[in-house]
Amino acid sequence: MQEKTPTAKLIIIGNEILSGKIQDKNTQFIAQELNKIGIKLTEVRTIADTEDDIVAAVRDLKVKCDYVFTTGGIGPTHDDITARSIAKAFGRRYCLNEEAKALMERHYKRINTDLTEVRLKMAYTPEGAKLITNEDIAAPGFIIENVYVLAGIPVVMHAMFDELKSTLKGGKEILSRSIDIFIPESVIAEQIGIIQEKYPSIEIGSYPFIRRTQWGTTIMLSSNNPEMMESAMEEIHSYLESI
Amino acid sequence: MQEKTPTAKLIIIGNEILSGKIQDKNTQFIAQELNKIGIKLTEVRTIADTEDDIVAAVRDLKVKCDYVFTTGGIGPTHDDITARSIAKAFGRRYCLNEEAKALMERHYKRINTDLTEVRLKMAYTPEGAKLITNEDIAAPGFIIENVYVLAGIPVVMHAMFDELKSTLKGGKEILSRSIDIFIPESVIAEQIGIIQEKYPSIEIGSYPFIRRTQWGTTIMLSSNNPEMMESAMEEIHSYLESI
Repeated sequence: MQEKTPTAKLIIIGNEILSGKIQDKNTQFIAQELNKIGIKLTEVRTIADTEDDIVAAVRDLKVKCDYVFTTGGIGPTHDDITARSIAKAFGRRYCLNEEAKALMERHYKRINTDLTEVRLKMAYTPEGAKLITNEDIAAPGFIIENVYVLAGIPVVMHAMFDELKSTLKGGKEILSRSIDIFIPESVIAEQIGIIQEKYPSIEIGSYPFIRRTQWGTTIMLSSNNPEMMESAMEEIHSYLESI
Repeated sequence: MQEKTPTAKLIIIGNEILSGKIQDKNTQFIAQELNKIGIKLTEVRTIADTEDDIVAAVRDLKVKCDYVFTTGGIGPTHDDITARSIAKAFGRRYCLNEEAKALMERHYKRINTDLTEVRLKMAYTPEGAKLITNEDIAAPGFIIENVYVLAGIPVVMHAMFDELKSTLKGGKEILSRSIDIFIPESVIAEQIGIIQEKYPSIEIGSYPFIRRTQWGTTIMLSSNNPEMMESAMEEIHSYLESI
């Protein structure tokens, strides 16, 4: 019997994405990293930097999957309200984390910079949070139950993800393959549908594209079963060669 | 008294985004276009191409904002289940839309291509849907109540959005401005917070960046009040010059 693939959902706390000013980059990184360790990303919610939205999204999603990741809003400025909001979502106190404070004291001493009151805000977490940190991370992310709270800026988020990923319980690597052809998808739709029915363990997607006025189709396959994937790929290739 | 800014939410129906294979481009386009006509994008949900997820997201979001947009899943292939799922979300029949069929017959005749059974799938909509189309769009998008169902491929989505946007009731244009400085945000956090309190009608965000090992901050302002925006910008500039 096939084991159930663990699932994750991502909450992007990001007025800067919703305003159209910044292009999100974190979804693709997290999706690809999770695939490598056999965890399937099943939803992404990009929400505003407001307490109500953060509380609602965390409460809603943490019971619907194995892992929730959040990015953004853990810096020192007035709009950084993620840690406080997550404390509220879990009904926990929002308070100074002594371990985070000690780590930050060491970090700022090493780089010869004052740990000001403003910076110390980044050492506040929900009570009982487990820290996500290492020597290079100035201010830690944290974990409560199945919710992983990460920085929004990609370079720091990547460092935090690298730090935590060995603690995630995944399954078999989720592989992706794709084929691009200059045939409109309506021509191949029926046969690709038949192949999909034959391989229920493979997720087959079909996406139109247009390049230099010519329409084509990207056929994407995704699965954690490499042998089945190979068979489905072969079948699609030989069908495409036959038309 | 300030009028309430109309709000929108976006549902991206996209296994291809969740798998990390394709970088979403639709959020930024829709956010920016909505800002121009004074509508604020307040949430984006990227969900899987499954009926349950589409039904749940549409039912949940359509009552929480003025406009819901969906992108993706309205093509001719097996994984295109958006129209059928949206019919279900509204408790309407999913059936052949005669107007869509007539438009598609005309379109395919003009390009000298058969309107096959497979292509005709794209003329099925929830009963009573209003079409979003023009001469260049092969298969229409559609509207039910406050839900606007668009193609996923950017070039077609843009054409559909252009077609429908004059029907949206927006407010005053939402303007964005930003300032990049090579000062870490923890240095300016306190004063920017004070300026934010002074200008509650301006949304001020602060985002760290790192370029060639040097840390900096992007300060972003967003508002539909150009005079207040100008004052806040001036205040931030003169503060930054003073440090």
